[in-house]
Amino acid sequence: MARKIQAADIEDIAVGAAVLGTGGGGDPYIGQLMAIEAINRHGPVDLIEVDDLADDDLVICSAMMGAPTVMVEKIPAGDEFVRAFQAIEQRLGRKARAVISAEAGGLNSTTPFITAAAMRLPLVDADGMGRAFPEIQMVTFTIYGLRATPMAMADEKGNVVVLDCVDNLWTERLARTATIEMGCTAMIALYPATGRQLREAACRNTITLAQRIGAAIRQARSRQQDPVAAILEVTGGFRLFKGKIVDVSRRTERGFARGYARLEGLEDHHGRTMEIEFQNEHLVARTGEGVVCSVPDLICLVDAESGEPITTEAMRYGFRVEVLGIPCDPRWRTEAGLELVGPRYFGYDFDYVPVETLMG
Amino acid sequence: MARKIQAADIEDIAVGAAVLGTGGGGDPYIGQLMAIEAINRHGPVDLIEVDDLADDDLVICSAMMGAPTVMVEKIPAGDEFVRAFQAIEQRLGRKARAVISAEAGGLNSTTPFITAAAMRLPLVDADGMGRAFPEIQMVTFTIYGLRATPMAMADEKGNVVVLDCVDNLWTERLARTATIEMGCTAMIALYPATGRQLREAACRNTITLAQRIGAAIRQARSRQQDPVAAILEVTGGFRLFKGKIVDVSRRTERGFARGYARLEGLEDHHGRTMEIEFQNEHLVARTGEGVVCSVPDLICLVDAESGEPITTEAMRYGFRVEVLGIPCDPRWRTEAGLELVGPRYFGYDFDYVPVETLMG
Repeated sequence: MARKIQAADIEDIAVGAAVLGTGGGGDPYIGQLMAIEAINRHGPVDLIEVDDLADDDLVICSAMMGAPTVMVEKIPAGDEFVRAFQAIEQRLGRKARAVISAEAGGLNSTTPFITAAAMRLPLVDADGMGRAFPEIQMVTFTIYGLRATPMAMADEKGNVVVLDCVDNLWTERLARTATIEMGCTAMIALYPATGRQLREAACRNTITLAQRIGAAIRQARSRQQDPVAAILEVTGGFRLFKGKIVDVSRRTERGFARGYARLEGLEDHHGRTMEIEFQNEHLVARTGEGVVCSVPDLICLVDAESGEPITTEAMRYGFRVEVLGIPCDPRWRTEAGLELVGPRYFGYDFDYVPVETLMG
Repeated sequence: MARKIQAADIEDIAVGAAVLGTGGGGDPYIGQLMAIEAINRHGPVDLIEVDDLADDDLVICSAMMGAPTVMVEKIPAGDEFVRAFQAIEQRLGRKARAVISAEAGGLNSTTPFITAAAMRLPLVDADGMGRAFPEIQMVTFTIYGLRATPMAMADEKGNVVVLDCVDNLWTERLARTATIEMGCTAMIALYPATGRQLREAACRNTITLAQRIGAAIRQARSRQQDPVAAILEVTGGFRLFKGKIVDVSRRTERGFARGYARLEGLEDHHGRTMEIEFQNEHLVARTGEGVVCSVPDLICLVDAESGEPITTEAMRYGFRVEVLGIPCDPRWRTEAGLELVGPRYFGYDFDYVPVETLMG
């Protein structure tokens, strides 16, 4: 069943998706502004279910790629998403039936609305991660053998690059260098897939989940209730730590925002510290006792008062935050999933343990 | 008028083109082997004139891009040229009428025969430089406003990248980073153009010129005559220096082979030295008196005995060489031409003076 997403719905989606973005997935404010403008210009977007797709319907992911640290300063011209999307249609010689989101994140849950509105196509209520991840091959689609290519990339200058790669890791390599050369951000269209493939491979209803998280935060605030409790109720997550950011190290390296943040405990956590490492997204959260949450589970920083999600590029000294741990999509916990996005892929020498076990 | 190029013609073309390649344009031996194999498999290639093309005929350049130093060790799988060529046809939705060479060089004057033979298309007796140059935008086509894109790149692993860029400099930037990521070499198809455009913009009859140079060297050797004199007779060039290579510095940097060679004079040049700087191709030749030849004129090193051209990657200590200076295509001497390939573009702080003036 389709429902219409209006400009007024976008803020909740952007805020909720930024929680799922685990620090990455792009700045929610910029994605929100662009999506609202697109809906105001072209009309509301139909949000459809994966089950509304016919088996052979062509669906294409629309997203932003690159370092969010750069994205906040280099705003897209506006038509890059459509140019990338149409380049895939041209390459395949077929029109898409719908747009889908590659990841759940502040930017990449709202940018597909820009494409969908401008192309007058519905958006599928699903994505390829159920959270955000930094690299192209890190989607549940890869687990099911879907190819990222043909993939198209467009920049604000007017350049378009179309890739056809032997595997999704080569797509990541070639797309990453092109993104860096384009100025560390590019608008992309990728993972052309059929309705049949998405029924198996997509993380479902994640736009609706983002909207519910955003609405829960907004409503808790207006009722002077605890917004963090509201997030946990919707997501089934855990409170990992409450603290003040006392150190942030951040560098743009090989097209990624990499670094760490150090937190000093507040209230119940007084006298303890937490360190969080990130590559666009938060990867690992540790206290003195060791790892308390790691990829592929979600590590989310939110403002301790307002519940507003804080992206890695927005972290600043002095921010009082709560760190939440949210269980990931169960497909990420399989052997194939952990090979793609487990701690060892990111260079850590420990095995993944589910957050609910670590907290149990 | 078309004439058939047989496998037996390829060696003269490869050797002569390596003279025009001014140290770059790729290793003549590898290009030769691949072209002979392609003709043996698919049959001889029709070499046609630019004037044989109809105004609207589509012609596409086929070439190798990257560092020749890597090319000699990483041999193509064989079908990359065709995959790149067909990616452009697919992108344009049109079949090409003929193949054309992007540059005159040991490799890139013979690789188009691979594409032409496999695609069963004629090859146009022309190219975009009348010599070799290291960067994509450095073709006479650019002077006449032709676009390098849509351009396709294929590697030996099976990856294909298609570029659509706002200008030829952006094509160079994005194609160069992709080439580096592909392993410093890529097979490319680019500068789709019409017969009408090529009549204005192409350097004509350069395959035939290469064949005449190669034949002149071969015949002079078999008659025990001076092969260098034979080259100068066909090309209208000058003897710049005779010497022994005493130092070569070569590095692969940003996808290019860069460096210099130092020569100690022999015979008439005894007691003098020459230094030659290169970026894939030779850029500047200097003696104690100053610059004796610079881009866009051709600086060609040949073996002092055999007249065999020596590429930058083949230069070794002890080689006895003659350095020749050959006037470039007159279009390179225009303001637009010098802006693209004059000494100042390559970072030198002097103006171009034609080699015949410097030698006069």
